[in-house]
Amino acid sequence: MKIAVLGTGSVGPALAGALSALGHDVVVGTRDPEATLARTEPGATGGPAFSQWHASHPDIAVATFADAAAASELVVNATNGMASLKVLAEAGTANLAGKILMDVANPLDLSRGFPPSLNPVNTDSLAEEIQRAFPEAKVVKTLNTMTNSVMVDPGRVAGGDHTVFVSGNDAGAKAAVTEILTALGHKDVLDLGDITTARGAEMVLPLWLRVWGALGTGEFNFKIAR
Amino acid sequence: MKIAVLGTGSVGPALAGALSALGHDVVVGTRDPEATLARTEPGATGGPAFSQWHASHPDIAVATFADAAAASELVVNATNGMASLKVLAEAGTANLAGKILMDVANPLDLSRGFPPSLNPVNTDSLAEEIQRAFPEAKVVKTLNTMTNSVMVDPGRVAGGDHTVFVSGNDAGAKAAVTEILTALGHKDVLDLGDITTARGAEMVLPLWLRVWGALGTGEFNFKIAR
Repeated sequence: MKIAVLGTGSVGPALAGALSALGHDVVVGTRDPEATLARTEPGATGGPAFSQWHASHPDIAVATFADAAAASELVVNATNGMASLKVLAEAGTANLAGKILMDVANPLDLSRGFPPSLNPVNTDSLAEEIQRAFPEAKVVKTLNTMTNSVMVDPGRVAGGDHTVFVSGNDAGAKAAVTEILTALGHKDVLDLGDITTARGAEMVLPLWLRVWGALGTGEFNFKIAR
Repeated sequence: MKIAVLGTGSVGPALAGALSALGHDVVVGTRDPEATLARTEPGATGGPAFSQWHASHPDIAVATFADAAAASELVVNATNGMASLKVLAEAGTANLAGKILMDVANPLDLSRGFPPSLNPVNTDSLAEEIQRAFPEAKVVKTLNTMTNSVMVDPGRVAGGDHTVFVSGNDAGAKAAVTEILTALGHKDVLDLGDITTARGAEMVLPLWLRVWGALGTGEFNFKIAR
């Protein structure tokens, strides 16, 4: 499948690499491809510089948000949640129309320091904001409840015995995303319901951050024991 | 230990019965003991009427919020989260001072229908409100992330292989609560940190509610797979 991954932080390259390894035709979307490819500083969470990452993933194209989205059947929003609506507007309404928009972002507001608050929260979610802003896109919220290494290699935590959630209004889009999640190694894909259920998935982030603090590692995941 | 359980909904009697069965000296606190004991209508979630429940738990006293708290070393807040501050004020600041206050409530606001929103949320929590209102109490948030049958009998879900969180400022109080949780059968008690971490535990409720909807049962629990 032709997939655009928007975002060049720690999550975007991790997902782009994993989806490419599964045989998908992946393009990374960024504001300024030339500037992104020239980056030599380490990633925000200590990962390799984008230029270094790209040198080891020569099959993955790098394009503007709009060009990446235009070329793809499925678009992954792996941008900073506070910037996602702006980035998706740059990607272009027409380039998102009719497509699956897999939203893995969290609207973490760090403007008041750590721990971040969520914005929106409680009676709305980023996924719902995106669905309202791009009504012709088929938004599916998923993967936002775990760190990127677990997103792409779930087996590294408890042998993969944990849960990933999907929320969205379009059953076909959720089925396609579920297929991708299963291919990545996720064993327990739990469909929470329509896009409003993304509130639940996003509001688990404050707990995620505190568990991270308590365990001293982000390499864990939620499991729905039942 | 002398324990007061405040609240006569579905959670209070479940915890009171289980703590009594462990050998604790338990009193249930309610606004009007006479009215509570006269109740013959079924519980809110389909459980037995309070009078019927009490007939099968004759060792458990029923008293006013204040009398119950005054007589106890540990107080459990198992009231409706939207009413908790008012109930605890009725219990009395002096009757809570120096005591462990185990808060298992969730501030679910159902005034706008289902799903409820949380109030407070995001930059505050019910547990923090309680700690601020009763600074001499040792508030420990716990057990609010699961249904009452799992609180008191964790082995009924996945053989007890799941997680319960504790949040609080007082290490001794958290240790005492952990001892109680372990006696109830909880195998994985995860200390999230100070009372502000209760935001995380409370904000998982919207996800809990959606998982309940997806599974068609509340008999599940979160596990931190690691």
